[in-house]
This record gives sequence, C-alpha cells and structure tokens, in this order.
Amino acid sequence: VAELSLSPVEGLPEVGPGDDIAQLVIDALAKRGQALEGGDILVVAQKIVSKSEGRLRDLATVTPGKDARRIAEEHGPEADPRLIQVILDETVRVVRSERVLIVETRHGYVCANAGVDHSNVPGLDMVTLLPVDPDSSAESLRARLREIGRVEVGVIVSDTFGRAWRIGIENVALGVAGLPAVIDYRGQLDDFDQELTATVVAVADELAAAAELVMGKTARIPAVVIRGYHPEALPGLGKDLIRPAELDLFR
Amino acid sequence: VAELSLSPVEGLPEVGPGDDIAQLVIDALAKRGQALEGGDILVVAQKIVSKSEGRLRDLATVTPGKDARRIAEEHGPEADPRLIQVILDETVRVVRSERVLIVETRHGYVCANAGVDHSNVPGLDMVTLLPVDPDSSAESLRARLREIGRVEVGVIVSDTFGRAWRIGIENVALGVAGLPAVIDYRGQLDDFDQELTATVVAVADELAAAAELVMGKTARIPAVVIRGYHPEALPGLGKDLIRPAELDLFR
Repeated sequence: VAELSLSPVEGLPEVGPGDDIAQLVIDALAKRGQALEGGDILVVAQKIVSKSEGRLRDLATVTPGKDARRIAEEHGPEADPRLIQVILDETVRVVRSERVLIVETRHGYVCANAGVDHSNVPGLDMVTLLPVDPDSSAESLRARLREIGRVEVGVIVSDTFGRAWRIGIENVALGVAGLPAVIDYRGQLDDFDQELTATVVAVADELAAAAELVMGKTARIPAVVIRGYHPEALPGLGKDLIRPAELDLFR
Repeated sequence: VAELSLSPVEGLPEVGPGDDIAQLVIDALAKRGQALEGGDILVVAQKIVSKSEGRLRDLATVTPGKDARRIAEEHGPEADPRLIQVILDETVRVVRSERVLIVETRHGYVCANAGVDHSNVPGLDMVTLLPVDPDSSAESLRARLREIGRVEVGVIVSDTFGRAWRIGIENVALGVAGLPAVIDYRGQLDDFDQELTATVVAVADELAAAAELVMGKTARIPAVVIRGYHPEALPGLGKDLIRPAELDLFR
C-alpha cells in the first residue's frame, strides 16, 4: 500500500539569525530516536527560515513615507503606517487595498501584506519578511542536510497564504528543492484511454498544505517530515508555482 | 508523536448511478484486511460521488444556445458549444471568459468550467457535473458508513480547482461532514503570548489537498483514508469555505 505519513519535528528551539536549521532538525529528531530517511520531504515554515536568515525588521526603526501614511489612513485607526511601509518595501504592485493590502511581492507572490508577519516573533515591534529567494533557501537547507545528515531529502519552505474566492488561509510552497513542484499529466491517458487535458497539479503546494495540518498555528512545530511520497516527475522549483503576471487573469 | 497517515482505498470498481459508495469502500478495504476506524476522515473524489448520484450529461443530447455558441466562437476551434452550454447551465455568473471559462457555480464555487469534466468518465460525450449539494452528499456518505460500517468518520467530497495567481490545480473540499472546515485561531495567543489575528485556516481544503497526493490523476484511487487528524474545533460544512461574493475582492 502506498502510504503517506506526516510527523512533526518536535522540540525545536526558538530560531535566531545565523542558526543552522539543518542541525537543529537533525538534533531534535535524534533526541526522540528519529532521523530523516532518503526520499523524505522536510517542510519548514517560512518563519524559521526568515529568522535564521535575519529577514527581520524592527518597526521602531521604520519611518513611514507618504504612501504608507495615506494607505494607513484609508485602512482605519488600527492600521500601523510603519508596518505598511515595510510591506510596500517588499512590494512591486498593489493588487488590492481594501480592508487588507494584497500585493505582488518582488518574488511574484500575490499575498496579503507581502508575507510580512508579526505572529510568533519575539519583540513587540519585530516582524519577519519572506526569504529573499525561497528556492535558494530550500536548496541550501537540502545541501546542508546532505552534508551533515548524509541523507538525500526534498525540502519545501512553506507559508500560509489567503486565496481568492475561498475562505481561510492555506499553506503553500514558496521554496522547493529536490522534489517536483508540479506534475504535468497533459498528454497522459485517463482510466478510459482519453487524453487528460489541462491537468497540471501543484503537488508542492499540496504537500505544504498537508504539512500545515501537523504544524498548527500555536504549537511550536515549524517543521514536518513527510514520508512515502515518491512521484515520477522531475524536481522543480517554487518559482514554477508562480503564475506569470501576463498569464494571470486576476491581478 | 501526533502522526498523520494517508492511505489509498484500492480496488474500487467503476462507480455508476445508484451505487452505494459506502458499501464499495467498506468492501474494498475489507478485501485487503483493512477497515475504517473511528475518527478517520474519508476523502472521496467528486467524480465518483457525481457518478453515483447520476450527475451526468450526455453532450449528444445538448443543443447549444446563442450564448454558448458565441462563447465557443470566441474560445476558438477546439471549443465545444455543447460543453459550454452544459457549463452555462451550472453557472450563475461568468467571472472570466478568456482561454477558459471561469464561472461562479450555483453553489458559489468559482472554478473553471463549473466543475464540468469529461476525464475518467466512460463514453466519449459523457461529462460529470458537480453534486447538487456536496455537503449533503458528504453527510449521506457519513450516515451510511455509520449505518453499515458502524463507524463514526469524517467525510470530504473533493475536487481539483485552479487558483488565481498560482500555477496548477489543487484539491479542495466541496462537501464536508463530521469534521471542521476551518479552524479559527483568532483571539488565541501565539508562542510569545501575542494575540493571533486574521488566522482562519482552511483545514478541510488542506486535508483534501493532502489526499490528492495519494489519489493521483490516472491511477484509479478515488478515495483516501486519513488517520490521526483530531483537531479541537467544531464540525463545519464545505459551504463555510466559500467566500461570499460581497466579501470577495476578485469576482
């Protein structure tokens, strides 16, 4: 039976700038008699990757500009113009500014607040930014796990994004290394020998979504091991999951 | 260790109108010495639910109207005006008509082709429609599993939908019974005792997404058992995942 299992990496310490996530994960697993196996997929929350890469900003040091002040005024008394300034600094295009700021980030993600977030960050005014290059973050972590853990795994750097049309946020894959981002079934035959059309499945997003079920939001589980997923498709990048603006009907 | 596992229901026969999916699943599992356990979540593909409910149309019997013919002409020579007519019959609002038809269905889903699909359906001109009320389909299946299987499980009726902004389709939960659709963390404290804001997680969509990884597209695995997911939240409905049009910035 092809079975998929997901287990939390428990007991990870608070991560700070410069910390070696690969080592922390290996140590946390070892303490419980566990270890990564070849072919596993390690899903890590963007939050700890950003912290380890020093992608933090202290709102106390931010002076909001004219645009940030105007948007804060439009959004109402609870909006913080300093936070909006930080969001705009990560933004190439404001997609919607109503109730929330939905923007296109420099990576091409369309998401609320450019992924800038102050939950689960120590310090009242500290916020995390998304990694500069999540694919490269994933690849570095994968290389480091190979180096010190002597194991070949896939890595996903994940974050929770909102969606158009549907309620609630869902985990997606920002960075991908060592596993497919999408599986393209076009041209293959279905169970009745008809050709499947328009069927490109975002498997890395589905893996990230699955991992969120084990991460939760308040328990400190920023890393999850997925075992048993062995697709017949070439490795890809998180970039592959970004719809180019010119092909997007909704931005 | 809180572990989540997903396993395929293997050996299901082709499903037709009137078939008892609960019985088929129980039998297929039993043949392999398996059984549902209390607290399991059974994810079933919309395709077999639609087939069992007779939600099928034969394009050979469809006469396209004026709108369908016009749209088919705009979409080019490969567009089938009969298929477009069937899609329009399921539609309350055309959201985009470029390359594909993205519509709001009578349920409120925004998706390509109103969920009308001809893959994995026997007969060249046969297509499946989405269930009339996926929550009720899920609840019926749950009740029937309780009746004949004497087991209390959650049920998700899933389908793969495209997304704005991101490449590829992903499984989502259309119908939900006996488990939460969303988990609302608002008001709870994060790991640093700050209040979490704007954090409503679409867990039923994440469960559906996870199940797709086991279903695949071409292997005949239209049902998956998820074991080990026990959230502390009240049961909800697939309806809870539909963003009301008046709160949606993108339709």
